[in-house]
Amino acid sequence: MESVIQEKGNLSIHTENIFPIIKKFLYSDHEIFLRELVSNAVDASQKIKKLASYGEYNGELGDLKVVVKLDKDAKTITISDNGIGMTADEIKKYINQIAFSGATEFVEQYKDKGEGDKGIIGHFGLGFYSAYMVAQNVEIITKSYKEGAEPVRWECDGSTEFEISPVEKAERGTDIILHIAEDSEEFLDAHRLRGILEKYGKFLPIEIEFEDKVINNPSPIWTKSPSDLKDEDYLAFYKELHPFSEDPLFWIHLNVDYPFNLTGVLYFPKLRNDFSGQREKIQLYSRQVFITDEVKDIVPDFLQLLHGVIDSPDIPLNVSRSYLQADGNVKKINGYITRKVADKLLEIFKNDREGFEKKFDDIGLFVKYGIISDDKFYEKAKDFCLLKNTDGKYFTFEEYREHIKENQTDKNESLVWLYTTDEKKQDAFIQSAKKRSYDVLVLDTVIDSHFINALEQKLEKISVKRVDADTLDKLVEKEVKLESILSSDDQEKVKKVFEGISENKTAQIAVEAMPVDELPVVITFPEFMRRMTDMQASSGQRSMFGDMPLMYTVSLNSNHPLIGKIAGSDNEDEQKALAKQLYDLALLSQGMLSGNDLTQFIQRTVGTLS
Amino acid sequence: MESVIQEKGNLSIHTENIFPIIKKFLYSDHEIFLRELVSNAVDASQKIKKLASYGEYNGELGDLKVVVKLDKDAKTITISDNGIGMTADEIKKYINQIAFSGATEFVEQYKDKGEGDKGIIGHFGLGFYSAYMVAQNVEIITKSYKEGAEPVRWECDGSTEFEISPVEKAERGTDIILHIAEDSEEFLDAHRLRGILEKYGKFLPIEIEFEDKVINNPSPIWTKSPSDLKDEDYLAFYKELHPFSEDPLFWIHLNVDYPFNLTGVLYFPKLRNDFSGQREKIQLYSRQVFITDEVKDIVPDFLQLLHGVIDSPDIPLNVSRSYLQADGNVKKINGYITRKVADKLLEIFKNDREGFEKKFDDIGLFVKYGIISDDKFYEKAKDFCLLKNTDGKYFTFEEYREHIKENQTDKNESLVWLYTTDEKKQDAFIQSAKKRSYDVLVLDTVIDSHFINALEQKLEKISVKRVDADTLDKLVEKEVKLESILSSDDQEKVKKVFEGISENKTAQIAVEAMPVDELPVVITFPEFMRRMTDMQASSGQRSMFGDMPLMYTVSLNSNHPLIGKIAGSDNEDEQKALAKQLYDLALLSQGMLSGNDLTQFIQRTVGTLS
Repeated sequence: MESVIQEKGNLSIHTENIFPIIKKFLYSDHEIFLRELVSNAVDASQKIKKLASYGEYNGELGDLKVVVKLDKDAKTITISDNGIGMTADEIKKYINQIAFSGATEFVEQYKDKGEGDKGIIGHFGLGFYSAYMVAQNVEIITKSYKEGAEPVRWECDGSTEFEISPVEKAERGTDIILHIAEDSEEFLDAHRLRGILEKYGKFLPIEIEFEDKVINNPSPIWTKSPSDLKDEDYLAFYKELHPFSEDPLFWIHLNVDYPFNLTGVLYFPKLRNDFSGQREKIQLYSRQVFITDEVKDIVPDFLQLLHGVIDSPDIPLNVSRSYLQADGNVKKINGYITRKVADKLLEIFKNDREGFEKKFDDIGLFVKYGIISDDKFYEKAKDFCLLKNTDGKYFTFEEYREHIKENQTDKNESLVWLYTTDEKKQDAFIQSAKKRSYDVLVLDTVIDSHFINALEQKLEKISVKRVDADTLDKLVEKEVKLESILSSDDQEKVKKVFEGISENKTAQIAVEAMPVDELPVVITFPEFMRRMTDMQASSGQRSMFGDMPLMYTVSLNSNHPLIGKIAGSDNEDEQKALAKQLYDLALLSQGMLSGNDLTQFIQRTVGTLS
Repeated sequence: MESVIQEKGNLSIHTENIFPIIKKFLYSDHEIFLRELVSNAVDASQKIKKLASYGEYNGELGDLKVVVKLDKDAKTITISDNGIGMTADEIKKYINQIAFSGATEFVEQYKDKGEGDKGIIGHFGLGFYSAYMVAQNVEIITKSYKEGAEPVRWECDGSTEFEISPVEKAERGTDIILHIAEDSEEFLDAHRLRGILEKYGKFLPIEIEFEDKVINNPSPIWTKSPSDLKDEDYLAFYKELHPFSEDPLFWIHLNVDYPFNLTGVLYFPKLRNDFSGQREKIQLYSRQVFITDEVKDIVPDFLQLLHGVIDSPDIPLNVSRSYLQADGNVKKINGYITRKVADKLLEIFKNDREGFEKKFDDIGLFVKYGIISDDKFYEKAKDFCLLKNTDGKYFTFEEYREHIKENQTDKNESLVWLYTTDEKKQDAFIQSAKKRSYDVLVLDTVIDSHFINALEQKLEKISVKRVDADTLDKLVEKEVKLESILSSDDQEKVKKVFEGISENKTAQIAVEAMPVDELPVVITFPEFMRRMTDMQASSGQRSMFGDMPLMYTVSLNSNHPLIGKIAGSDNEDEQKALAKQLYDLALLSQGMLSGNDLTQFIQRTVGTLS
C-alpha cells in the first residue's frame, strides 16, 4: 500500500485526450471553422499593414486580400492570404502549441504604438484547430514577410503528430488547405460555402474573394464617422442588411468609446400591428466579424424590435446567459442604447411634429412596449408618446388632458378616456359617443390592453374605458340624469319580456333612460372583466375563464318608441317577436349573433320583406 | 536566419492556456457543474455496487447515497458519496491529468463481465473541472474502498497548481467541497440548488439527498419492464413529469436494444386546436441523467407534440445540429419511434373503435400533422385516420368514400368532399347542404388546409371544397340542371340593379337558378384562392395578397320570389332598397357586414319595425 505524502504539483493535460474535445466540441456549430480561418487570414493581412505603418516592414504591401477556393474533386477548401506569413519557428510556437495565443503577444509588443489592439482578433491558437471539425487533414503552406524567410509546409492528419518540411512558395503569406472529412462533405458545396462566408464575413475589413468575386464590404458605414455619411448611405446599408424590406423610418448611429467600446447603426422599421417576424433583426459583430443575431441578452426586449448592427469587442461571447445578464458592460450598453433611442425620438418629435405623427402608426407599438417595460424610457417617452383618435388627430398625454377636460370629466373629477379596439366592430358605439361630442381614442394594437393598464398606474385621475363598456351615461357619469318616459311598472313589464326570451342566463338585463335617438336595446361589456380577458389573450395565455362566454349587460332604452310599443302591447306573441328581433339586432351590433341564431334571423328578416 | 529542416513532432497543449477555456467555456450553462459532480458521485456509488457483485469488494455496501450540502456562511457546496473513493495514486491519475477518462479504463477492465458499460457515465476527467465554472477553490476529501487505503485531501485554487495532503476520514467515499466564487454566489441559494438537482437528477439511479430529503426517484418506470407495470403506474409517472397537466390519453413504452439502445415512455396528451405550448415536453436522458428537453433534432417534428421521456446512451450530445441530422443512429431512432407510434394507434383503432373515436378530437391534430409530414406514417395512418362530419359521426377515408359515393359523385366521376372550417359561421351553408342530404365534414383545426392539400394529392378522384365555395349546384355538378323561372331579360335587369349597389368592385355578380327555398342572394368564396390565403395564415406568413379583400361571388337566386319582385318592379328606389337589404343579409350571413354598413343596416331594420 502506498503512503500519502504532502505533495505539490502541476495539473497536466493529456493532449491526445483533450484534442478530440477541442476538435469536435469547441464550437457547437461546425460551420464556424470558416469564420475562424478567414478571421485569422484577415488578421494576418492587417498585421502586415500595421507593421508597414510602423516602418517595420518596407516591402511592397500589394493588394491585400483573402482568397477562398473550393476544389470539389480534390475535396479541399483553401484559404489564402498575403499577410505576414509564418517562419518555421513561428509555426512551432503558434501552431504546435495549442492555445498559445499569438495575438496576445503581438498586441503586447505593439501596444505602446497607438491604436492598441484595435482591429486584431485574438483567434490564433484555438481558432485554427476548429479546422479539424470538418477536415481530416490540414496543410499550412506559409512564407513569412521577414527578409530571407524560407517557406514552410506543415501538415497534421488530426492525430497529435505533425510534420514540418521545406516547400516552394514565391509570395509572402499563408495558404491553409483543408482536406475535408467524409462526414463533412456538405461543406464541399459552393452555394453553402458562399452562404457561410456571407454570413460571417460580409463586413470583414479586408477583401474576401470567392469564385472570383469579392463577397464583402470592407468598410461598412458603422466604421465611418456620421459626419461623412448622407441619408442615402444609411438607406443603402439598410438594403444591404435587409434586401427585401421596406425602407426604415429613421436611424441612430451609435458610437461610444468609454466606458465600453461600441459602434453600430440601429434602424426603426415600420412595425405592423404584430411582433412576429420582427425579432432577430439586430446583428452583433465583434470587430466586423459576425457573431450572432441572437441579441436577447444584450439588448432589452423592446429594443429588439429595431433592426441594424451593433459592433463591440466588449461584449463577452460564448458565456452563459445568467453571466451575460449580470455583466456590468452589458447593463451599461443596455442603458446607453435605451437613452440614445429615447433622445432620437424626442428630437424628431420636437423638430418635426408633423413627420413624427406620420411615423407614429409604425413606431407606436415600439414606444408603447418601451413605456410598459422600462421606467427610464417612460420618463422620456411620456412627452412624445402620441394618442390617436377616431378622427385621425394625434395628442400627447398632456394635450389630450386639455382636449377632453371640459366634456369628459365625470362627477368624481376623474377624466374618462374612451377608446375603441376595433373601429369597425364598435362603429355603432363610436357614432353614439360622437353624437355627444365625446372623443374616442383608437387603441387597437396587440399591446394596448397592457399599455392602458400601465398608463392608469402612471397618470393621475384618469379612467380608461372601451366605448362599449357601458351605456354612455354611465361611462361618463354626470350629476344630472335623463328622465324616463316609461313608468316603473311598464319598465318592469318590458324587463320581464326580455328576460323571457334571453338565452344567455349570465346576461344582466336593465332598463335605462337614454336619448330617444339611441338604439332600443344596447349590449355592453363591463370594462374590467373584458380587459382581463384581452390581456390574457394578448399574452397568449389560455383564459382563466375557460370558454365561458364574456359577461354582458343588456340595456333597454325606456325612451325608445319600440320599447314603449312592447310595454303598450297586450299580445304576448307580438311582444316576444318584437323583443326577439330587437335583442338580435343588439347582438348583431356586437358581432355576437352567429350560427343557427343568425341563420334564423336572416330567414325571418327575408320573410318580413316578402 | 533559421533554416527549415524536415521534422516530425507532437502537438502540445499549454495547460495554463487551455485551463481557463475548460473552466469557463466548456459548458455554456454554468449550472451544469452540479449535474457533472452529482453524476460522478452516482458513478462512484454504482461502481462499488458492481465491484461487490463481482466479488471484488467484500466489505459492507451500506446505504448507498449521494448527499448535497449547502453552507451559506462558509460559501460552500459539498457533494458527498460513499462510493469507491480514490487513493492518492488514483487522484494523481484521474484528477491531476485533465481529460484522462477514468470511466473508459474502468469499463475496459470489466467489459467481459456481462453488463458492459451500462450504468456507468463516462464523465470522470473533464466533468470534474466544470466545478471551476463556479468555484474559486475546490477540495477533494476521499478514502478508497481498498483495504488499508489512506484518506487523502486534494486542493486546487483554480490555478494549475494543486496540493495533496493526508487527512482524517473514517468512511469510504468522496466529498467534493466547492468554495463558490464571488461571481457565482447565485448558486448559494437553497431554492436554486434544489431546482438544479431536480432538473438534472430527478431520476438518477442512486438516492440524492438535499436538506434531509431525497429529491429523486431512482427507479423511474422506463427502466422497468412493461409487464411489471399497471396503468396507474404510467399515470402516476406522467403526473410526476407534468404535475399540472390533464391525464394523457394513452402511452407507448419504448424499449429497444439493437441496433441502438433506447428506452422511454411517450404519452399522448389531449391536444387542443393549437400547437403552442405543446413543444419541449419530451425530456431526453442519458442513463437517467437529464440532458435536455430540446429534442427537435432527435424526434421528428410531428412527434414532438407527444410528452414523456427518452433515455438513450446512443444519441450523441453536444454536437452540431447538421451532424445530428446526418447521424445514422438518430435517423434509426426517428424511424423506430414513428413506427411504434403508428402501430399503437392502429392497435387502439382495431381493438376499441369507440374509444378511439372519443379520443380522436384530441389526437387528430397529431395524426394529421404526421400524415402531412411523413410518408411512412401516412402509409399506416391512412387506415385509422378519421374524418368527422357535422353530425359528430366518424369515418375512415375508405368508409367515407362509401358514405358519400351515391349522392356526392359529380358528373366527372369525382367524389366531392364538402367541409366547414367553422360550423357557426357557415351555418346557413351547412343547413342548405343538409337539405339536399349532402354530408359536411368538420375540418376546423389549424392544419386542416394543409391536411386537405395532402389528401387531394394522395387519394384518387376526390375534390375537397368548403361548403361556401360555390352554390350547391356548382359544388357538386350534375348532368341535370334546375330551370330558371325568370326570363333572361329579367335576369339581366336584376343583375344590373345589384351591380349598381355593389360597393365591392371585385365581386362577381351572377344569376343562377336555385331551389325556391334557398336564400335570394348567396355570397361564396372560390375554393382555390381562399385556401391559399388560409394556408398562408396558418403558416404565420403575411398573405401575399396583402390586405386585399378576398374575391367573392354574389349569386342571385332567379327562382326566389324577392328576386322576382325586383325584376317586376318599375320603381328604381324600391328596387335598390330591396336589393340593398338582400345584399346586406347575404354579407351578414358570411360575417362580412361591419362598421358603418352594419350600423346603417341595424338602424334601417329598427326603422322597419316602428
